[in-house]
Amino acid sequence: MNKVISGMQRRGVMLVVSSPSGAGKTTLCDGLQKAYPDLKMSVSVTTRAPRPGEKHGEDYYFLSIEEFKKMQADGGLLESARVFDNYYGTPKGPVEQLLGEGKDILFDVDWQGASQLSQSCGDELCRVFILPPSAQALQERLSGRGTDSSQVVAKRMSEAAREISHWQDYDYIIINDELNIAQAQINAILSAERAKRERMLFLPEIVDDMLKNL
Amino acid sequence: MNKVISGMQRRGVMLVVSSPSGAGKTTLCDGLQKAYPDLKMSVSVTTRAPRPGEKHGEDYYFLSIEEFKKMQADGGLLESARVFDNYYGTPKGPVEQLLGEGKDILFDVDWQGASQLSQSCGDELCRVFILPPSAQALQERLSGRGTDSSQVVAKRMSEAAREISHWQDYDYIIINDELNIAQAQINAILSAERAKRERMLFLPEIVDDMLKNL
Repeated sequence: MNKVISGMQRRGVMLVVSSPSGAGKTTLCDGLQKAYPDLKMSVSVTTRAPRPGEKHGEDYYFLSIEEFKKMQADGGLLESARVFDNYYGTPKGPVEQLLGEGKDILFDVDWQGASQLSQSCGDELCRVFILPPSAQALQERLSGRGTDSSQVVAKRMSEAAREISHWQDYDYIIINDELNIAQAQINAILSAERAKRERMLFLPEIVDDMLKNL
Repeated sequence: MNKVISGMQRRGVMLVVSSPSGAGKTTLCDGLQKAYPDLKMSVSVTTRAPRPGEKHGEDYYFLSIEEFKKMQADGGLLESARVFDNYYGTPKGPVEQLLGEGKDILFDVDWQGASQLSQSCGDELCRVFILPPSAQALQERLSGRGTDSSQVVAKRMSEAAREISHWQDYDYIIINDELNIAQAQINAILSAERAKRERMLFLPEIVDDMLKNL
């Protein structure tokens, strides 16, 4: 961040990242957070029980089904999904607060989440899809874990195909062939999005001042 | 560039960079060309006489006024301007050829050139405006050359003000306070623009192949 604009009002970037399982999304998102320590991860709400070590407000906001349904009915969720008997969602309040503070937010969601976020948030989103370099590479990565039956791997492959089929809903596409190149690309995307004119709410004031003194 | 996509068809980026004189545009564009040796500088046509050492086709295409007017009348210029008795313009042919080859092109033009390019090329453009950190900093840079009268400096300042007043016509704004940060930003913008889905013409084929094999 330039000295001159640090602390000035900026509209945060809503960075949505999707990919099929096995394409390296988690690694790239971790790298992004290391490069941009200010980047906040969106914390989801869920009705599933906390797993050992998970913290409320950090890993998830853990809600009862009633609390979840009320939040949903009140328009308090930007997107939501049911997975088996559990509900998940992105709460609106924390997102709006962070954006207002000029913080960038990372949303790790699947194509359905990205699609709902697009409907809720429109042009504010910056949507990135990560592709594996080839079907074969993905197959190797998904079966490479070595701990799962071929049936489980096949199911993951078909889920991956469904996810990939929505690649056209995204603004940017990264092919994760070499990790360091893919990492540089996603970092560059966030950096560029921060430099978009319409996000720099402080600019009209700065430019007016400048023009008065020229 | 990823191995997997090198040599595949991509639509080149038309990167338009404008700024007031003294904001560091030339330095940043030189840095950009060092970071991206593939990036081609758009070569203008001009009716002015070559200066010692200038090469036709490298620094400019040197044309007679008749040749220039014919090119303009034939729709062969993407933008043009008259400066005193000389004409300048951006020839369409080389730009279309380079874009078709997937090459990115850098256009170093003022707000009028950028505006004409926007009309000719529309959404294909990526427009970057470089601002000085303050009016005072610009004044120091413009008078810091030390070789010009205060009248000349004042004229430059008023030209700078006119240029700056068009900042809202640009997609990205860089405030050149610290050079290394500004350089990283403009490099990131080109890198991100390359990752835009609509520029990656090879993607439908890659994804179709991938889906067939999943």
